[in-house]
Amino acid sequence: MLTTNPFDDDKLREECGIFGVSAASGSGAALVALGLHALQHRGQEAAGITSFDGHHFHTHRAMGHVAGNFDRDDVIRALPGSVACGHVRYSTTGETALRNVQPLYAELSTGGFAVAHNGNISNAMKLRRELVRRGSIFQSTSDTETIIHLVATSSYRTLLDRFIDALKQVEGAYSLIVMTPEGMIACRDPLGIRPLVMGKLDDAVIFASETVALDVCGAEFVRDVEPGELVIVQGGEVRSIKPFGPMAPRPCIFEWVYFSRPDSIVGDHSVYSVRKAIGAELAREAPVEADLVIPVPDSGVPAAIGYAQASGIPFELGIIRSHYVGRTFIQPGDKVRHLGVKLKHNANRALIKGKRVVLIDDSIVRGTTSLKIVQMMRDAGAAEVHMRIASPPTKHSCFYGVDTPERTKLLAHKLDLGGMTDFIHADSLSFVTIDGLYKALGEANRADIRPKYCDACFTGDYPTTLTDQDESGPSVDQFAMLAERVI
Amino acid sequence: MLTTNPFDDDKLREECGIFGVSAASGSGAALVALGLHALQHRGQEAAGITSFDGHHFHTHRAMGHVAGNFDRDDVIRALPGSVACGHVRYSTTGETALRNVQPLYAELSTGGFAVAHNGNISNAMKLRRELVRRGSIFQSTSDTETIIHLVATSSYRTLLDRFIDALKQVEGAYSLIVMTPEGMIACRDPLGIRPLVMGKLDDAVIFASETVALDVCGAEFVRDVEPGELVIVQGGEVRSIKPFGPMAPRPCIFEWVYFSRPDSIVGDHSVYSVRKAIGAELAREAPVEADLVIPVPDSGVPAAIGYAQASGIPFELGIIRSHYVGRTFIQPGDKVRHLGVKLKHNANRALIKGKRVVLIDDSIVRGTTSLKIVQMMRDAGAAEVHMRIASPPTKHSCFYGVDTPERTKLLAHKLDLGGMTDFIHADSLSFVTIDGLYKALGEANRADIRPKYCDACFTGDYPTTLTDQDESGPSVDQFAMLAERVI
Amino acid sequence: MLTTNPFDDDKLREECGIFGVSAASGSGAALVALGLHALQHRGQEAAGITSFDGHHFHTHRAMGHVAGNFDRDDVIRALPGSVACGHVRYSTTGETALRNVQPLYAELSTGGFAVAHNGNISNAMKLRRELVRRGSIFQSTSDTETIIHLVATSSYRTLLDRFIDALKQVEGAYSLIVMTPEGMIACRDPLGIRPLVMGKLDDAVIFASETVALDVCGAEFVRDVEPGELVIVQGGEVRSIKPFGPMAPRPCIFEWVYFSRPDSIVGDHSVYSVRKAIGAELAREAPVEADLVIPVPDSGVPAAIGYAQASGIPFELGIIRSHYVGRTFIQPGDKVRHLGVKLKHNANRALIKGKRVVLIDDSIVRGTTSLKIVQMMRDAGAAEVHMRIASPPTKHSCFYGVDTPERTKLLAHKLDLGGMTDFIHADSLSFVTIDGLYKALGEANRADIRPKYCDACFTGDYPTTLTDQDESGPSVDQFAMLAERVI
Amino acid sequence: MLTTNPFDDDKLREECGIFGVSAASGSGAALVALGLHALQHRGQEAAGITSFDGHHFHTHRAMGHVAGNFDRDDVIRALPGSVACGHVRYSTTGETALRNVQPLYAELSTGGFAVAHNGNISNAMKLRRELVRRGSIFQSTSDTETIIHLVATSSYRTLLDRFIDALKQVEGAYSLIVMTPEGMIACRDPLGIRPLVMGKLDDAVIFASETVALDVCGAEFVRDVEPGELVIVQGGEVRSIKPFGPMAPRPCIFEWVYFSRPDSIVGDHSVYSVRKAIGAELAREAPVEADLVIPVPDSGVPAAIGYAQASGIPFELGIIRSHYVGRTFIQPGDKVRHLGVKLKHNANRALIKGKRVVLIDDSIVRGTTSLKIVQMMRDAGAAEVHMRIASPPTKHSCFYGVDTPERTKLLAHKLDLGGMTDFIHADSLSFVTIDGLYKALGEANRADIRPKYCDACFTGDYPTTLTDQDESGPSVDQFAMLAERVI
Repeated sequence: MLTTNPFDDDKLREECGIFGVSAASGSGAALVALGLHALQHRGQEAAGITSFDGHHFHTHRAMGHVAGNFDRDDVIRALPGSVACGHVRYSTTGETALRNVQPLYAELSTGGFAVAHNGNISNAMKLRRELVRRGSIFQSTSDTETIIHLVATSSYRTLLDRFIDALKQVEGAYSLIVMTPEGMIACRDPLGIRPLVMGKLDDAVIFASETVALDVCGAEFVRDVEPGELVIVQGGEVRSIKPFGPMAPRPCIFEWVYFSRPDSIVGDHSVYSVRKAIGAELAREAPVEADLVIPVPDSGVPAAIGYAQASGIPFELGIIRSHYVGRTFIQPGDKVRHLGVKLKHNANRALIKGKRVVLIDDSIVRGTTSLKIVQMMRDAGAAEVHMRIASPPTKHSCFYGVDTPERTKLLAHKLDLGGMTDFIHADSLSFVTIDGLYKALGEANRADIRPKYCDACFTGDYPTTLTDQDESGPSVDQFAMLAERVI
Repeated sequence: MLTTNPFDDDKLREECGIFGVSAASGSGAALVALGLHALQHRGQEAAGITSFDGHHFHTHRAMGHVAGNFDRDDVIRALPGSVACGHVRYSTTGETALRNVQPLYAELSTGGFAVAHNGNISNAMKLRRELVRRGSIFQSTSDTETIIHLVATSSYRTLLDRFIDALKQVEGAYSLIVMTPEGMIACRDPLGIRPLVMGKLDDAVIFASETVALDVCGAEFVRDVEPGELVIVQGGEVRSIKPFGPMAPRPCIFEWVYFSRPDSIVGDHSVYSVRKAIGAELAREAPVEADLVIPVPDSGVPAAIGYAQASGIPFELGIIRSHYVGRTFIQPGDKVRHLGVKLKHNANRALIKGKRVVLIDDSIVRGTTSLKIVQMMRDAGAAEVHMRIASPPTKHSCFYGVDTPERTKLLAHKLDLGGMTDFIHADSLSFVTIDGLYKALGEANRADIRPKYCDACFTGDYPTTLTDQDESGPSVDQFAMLAERVI
Repeated sequence: MLTTNPFDDDKLREECGIFGVSAASGSGAALVALGLHALQHRGQEAAGITSFDGHHFHTHRAMGHVAGNFDRDDVIRALPGSVACGHVRYSTTGETALRNVQPLYAELSTGGFAVAHNGNISNAMKLRRELVRRGSIFQSTSDTETIIHLVATSSYRTLLDRFIDALKQVEGAYSLIVMTPEGMIACRDPLGIRPLVMGKLDDAVIFASETVALDVCGAEFVRDVEPGELVIVQGGEVRSIKPFGPMAPRPCIFEWVYFSRPDSIVGDHSVYSVRKAIGAELAREAPVEADLVIPVPDSGVPAAIGYAQASGIPFELGIIRSHYVGRTFIQPGDKVRHLGVKLKHNANRALIKGKRVVLIDDSIVRGTTSLKIVQMMRDAGAAEVHMRIASPPTKHSCFYGVDTPERTKLLAHKLDLGGMTDFIHADSLSFVTIDGLYKALGEANRADIRPKYCDACFTGDYPTTLTDQDESGPSVDQFAMLAERVI
Repeated sequence: MLTTNPFDDDKLREECGIFGVSAASGSGAALVALGLHALQHRGQEAAGITSFDGHHFHTHRAMGHVAGNFDRDDVIRALPGSVACGHVRYSTTGETALRNVQPLYAELSTGGFAVAHNGNISNAMKLRRELVRRGSIFQSTSDTETIIHLVATSSYRTLLDRFIDALKQVEGAYSLIVMTPEGMIACRDPLGIRPLVMGKLDDAVIFASETVALDVCGAEFVRDVEPGELVIVQGGEVRSIKPFGPMAPRPCIFEWVYFSRPDSIVGDHSVYSVRKAIGAELAREAPVEADLVIPVPDSGVPAAIGYAQASGIPFELGIIRSHYVGRTFIQPGDKVRHLGVKLKHNANRALIKGKRVVLIDDSIVRGTTSLKIVQMMRDAGAAEVHMRIASPPTKHSCFYGVDTPERTKLLAHKLDLGGMTDFIHADSLSFVTIDGLYKALGEANRADIRPKYCDACFTGDYPTTLTDQDESGPSVDQFAMLAERVI
């Protein structure tokens, strides 16, 4: 069997989206379900919502999409209360996964404590070993649970002091939404690696990974939660605390390249406009004589429009995407080599035949998809196939909450430009430069001393220490070794 | 609850897609599953496949999509044989529906007989009453079963003679794929109202509603099955019979407007090219001064590209479509009036604010969606909103296998152009003319005497008699009265 | 895997139970569900109910038990009306089975027609071939459907005449409950091979396979439907018709041996009393010196009580039956040879050790269970094991609606008494004589000329012709060849 | 809806059964599944198995019976290893329940730790509050988890010392099976309130709640685990430790009355023989002139046989129990008052009519069932109905792992003997005396100073302190208040 999403298979994947609301005028959980639906692209394998009704916390977690799990009356009714938060994530199947699905919850001596986390704690393994040695029992293999045990065992008295105590011990990337009986806390790590915005719907305060989640709720965008900031919503009051010293922020640049939806505003930039600007930059940096500009659907569309407008070459739908996902059988034999690709995407043969085409995609990870799509153009009779990529070569793994293949599987790690061009069988291949990417974001170029963004996947310049990595390799493997296997 | 597909809700829906293969080199059913997946847009509520292994017929029917039902090893293995046909359809839920899911099968004195049907028999009720009077027992409420009983009770001797005898008694639209122990028969009604093409994969003969189903199988397009033609595949041999007198064909023009996929070739015309040509025609017939051309995704995209290229106004993605379907809860209150729309489609606010936009859609049925989408543009700050429709006003019901709302619910039946413009709150509204539509298909105009296409939904000019309608109203209601309710 | 019901595996199985109610004061279907639950032992693999609400027929069929399928509010609410009938049966799994689950329904020119059948039509294949030749299309592979097509195609005018016309063409065993818009008809074949009783609950008339179904409804037993009688309930009126000439009845004697519940009254005999009388007869015919009388649970209990009381040997529970059904894994190795048996039944070791035991069972079919249970006694330390069987040796297949293994698998067909004793490793083995069995039913002995019961499984004396058998072997195989395989 | 198990509804319910095997020759989990199936009567609402493959622990938990959940190849294969333990329990539905299903597991600094528990810790709430205060996070609302946290936070070094340290802090009833990477530990609380036996299958050591679980595995009974004993299986070695001071044991006497299966040997007494002896004692203590002795099936059967043999009154099956469980609809109206009862149990009317009957049941809890069954006898025409109960009046709640209704709902707490006789409408009612019960177990009588058994439910003489009760009422309610509600 073969998945029918071959083009999506070869992407980096944002591992989470989070959403919280304090004091909705109706059901908090219904609003969270809406918001998570709009953030579904950030995590498609599991979802969870926790609500607080003033007395009790209520949680529902499920494998699969928000739709189908959280659009049922009975589920929402079983999540009463005007305060709620939720989470979407990538993860593996089975019950093991279910206990890792967030929001995580614990009953502390201070009362209930629920947390939804986007990011990755890069010293979680080390902290966990120490906590277990002192008698803590972990329920999950999630790095997020480390934070809860640090709060539970903190020697400070108030919940807020315990929480800050815990955050000061963790390193890495975290945007968090925390629910306690006294109120909701939203915060971002000192570098603001993962996004988090604040909105307003009547008197309710909303936190979300992207502005598009505010849009679907009819909420108003207020501002970003700032790097290193804790926003505390208690009763009707909203307070801000910055317990960390001042640091230059380094938000993840890949949010504009691929992760965020084009209709979101991230860090004051329209994602759609940035992508069009990258496309235009690419047209300037890597022009080519051709008849058609064809986007790799759907993530390549804005850059392709930008490229087409800047180059004057007409934008056309040369690849038709089926809306029906699914898997199918492979018939043996040469005839069906590209079957999986065709199920999901089909060449518009009547359009392509005899034409010189420029294909625009947002990134290349392993390169397997690019190979297939170039071949699809040639099978449909394209005279020439030029590939243009709206990001620099992806050469390094991410340790901040993005699912990256092992570094040795990254095409740009293995091959130089000529090698990559050969590998995908294109007539030419170009990537936008790292400076071109910063230009599309309004910078003159990438400042080598203090760059404005985390671009480690392109440059290898990681903005934090990576304790678990330095000690013993990828943290994800260590976690996989842990604990019982629950089937 | 509210569906998240509001834009698709207000479309006419093709009721079926069919696919058959005679003597695949591997599993016939696996190939049919592939083909049906490519035809999924023609019928999303149920699917079925029948295979023949040289001795027995095997059938699996299921509510829901092809994926999830027919991409499983165990299902395909339980459908052995190199000959198979399948069907996708719209229908209602429950077991009642399941017995109506095609292919239908019967054991006749000549052996097994399976049939997959795209279209609608417009004298089915009258024939059924007569057959029941003579002792026939119907298993389903499908009009298609009428054909089977006519074959079973025909006084001719051979299967082929009995089948032709049956076809001569039915009226309406039918593209059929029939499987018998002796071979496969594909045919179209004398007017060729619904499409059917023939392809070739090595030595196997394939029949499909659209060429895109050939593409995904890696098969070669051979030709259309002609109106009034029976193509018979028996062993390695392919024969053609035309048992009806010569008639001028009238294929359904809506296939190019909306039903068929843009990457299909229907009646020798690229669907994508026709749609771009309609858009260009519309730009000529109904120009407007504006800043952006915005397609209503996804069916409006080709016409929008055509409009943009002809008018010189830039094509932009002003509406972002979520790939995640689903339903969600409506929060009470004004704030969420357009929630359902936003879940599925969201305005690209940063782009639209302060701009004059031309919206391009393929058709207007009830008008409810157009109203919402114009409002969405205004909420996002559009200065002016001009709606352009890539088909003439839809004023009449279809009785040839298309799911049309009652005529009184069609916006264009209720209101004139001014009324419609007011209803959807647009600054201006234009439809392409019927002649413009024919021009996009390469004609000079619509010939009033002998028009080349069935355009009854625009003109009310039905190419056949409508016996059941004339006798007693919509046949669908009569069928709903029939038989036991199986829960 | 191994079933945990090894003792039930080696039984003949009644293939059906039927129940109907005309004009219940509340929901007809709810009453039928109750009645079918009490008849569950007559057919455990599928169940169905059809109701009539004065206008429409409603049917629900399901694989599995009555409980779980017909004890749900939504199911019963979807079966409105005060008239209803139902059916429980043995059958195989899958949808193929589902379309064979009764009541069967057809829309005839006279209106709806539903039928529930207990028995077997022994010339069904021959009739079916003829009907197909004339253009009838069968929906199922059930012999019962033959009756419906005979009614549909009968040249008589009224439904009642058509129904009698049909019955006169069929041969074999049938107790039927038929529902039409005009009323309910219950009937038994001229020999009354399968049972059917009539009861009364306030003004409602009830038909059921056994009186125990009347008991659970709180209904009063009225009388047996007589062999060859049609009882017609129409409005408030009950009529009786006997369209066949007078014949000496031959009801199935195995109902008292095993099929019917001990708390039922069949043909004016208490089943429990008859079984105790057989046990007492067996004590007289085949006495033995022993310490304990042990029933094989549960069907051997009444005969064991009879044997114990007649012999003066104490009745004891030497085998404990688990109430929890299920299957489990077999561990390899000698230790677990009898695992499956032990899961369901376990020897009461403390009781049996060192004792001479008399085991009482109702019948021996293949003998595999007897072998295991004798061994179980020996493993528990029994000094001697004597087996006594409360029916004569089962030597012949049944063609009247009982699931019998092929004749060559019947132990008593293969071996004489000595051989059987050796096979099961018992110290002694005795069966009650055929005359002893008749005595327990109040007869002096079996009258060879005109015996009062159908005892063909013991004697080979079949009371009807067996057309399909005579032509071509077991009818069940012929039906298995028919039609498509629906997965 | 109405359950069809009305007789079982009015019983005390043992809350757990446990089973463990160390070093099976094949799959440990397969053997545990077998054993749990034999212990199913001790807990029917959920089951779990944990296995250890030498490196990892594997767990599967499920709501429902062992059969259906643990008889599947895929489940057993996913539980590799020769060491395994399992648990069956009563509990409520939903995921909340699932996290309470045992074996519980935790990853401690000493490695994995799994535990299966039969009993109840009567100071669990107090210990939990203290543990949470110190930073422990609980995963479940089970009292058993308290033990794990005491082990995790113990200041001792070795796992065994930590475990003994934990046990010394808990009070109440516990039979435990613990799995660690180093070996298996089985233990009983100092009073041995709940049972636990040790068996042998080749070289494997087995622990089980009852001997019947050894029987189904083909294992040999070795001895009881003694009150206050820890049996440690490590590699091939079995060691015994008794860390508590010597105490006079007080095993639960209700195991012989109702909880254990009749074919088990509990504390060297055959359960079947004890029950027969109670019946005989009852015949002596409370004789009556009657025609029939009728057991309330199935738990009343052994005592009824004992009563019949001692009194000379014939034992007869006057109530027939259906093997088919399920629920059904109640028809409104008087006629169906006792419908639920009849679905599951039906009077053998032909037997009972005009007779004086002695009904034998094992116990009366609320009395609702007794009322129905007496009425059932009267409806069937019994001349007199005398009820005899094979245990003393149940007047007190159990806090040692048995599900008892609130004390105020116990019939014997509310009414004296005359009141109870009136309540159930019997002609006479007698309970065996507490001394009679001790006699059936081979004692002269109940020694008031140091009675040999825990008989608190009859006498109110609780053998331990009840900390949580004394502080604040039933512990079960306190646990229900805890933690989030997971839906």
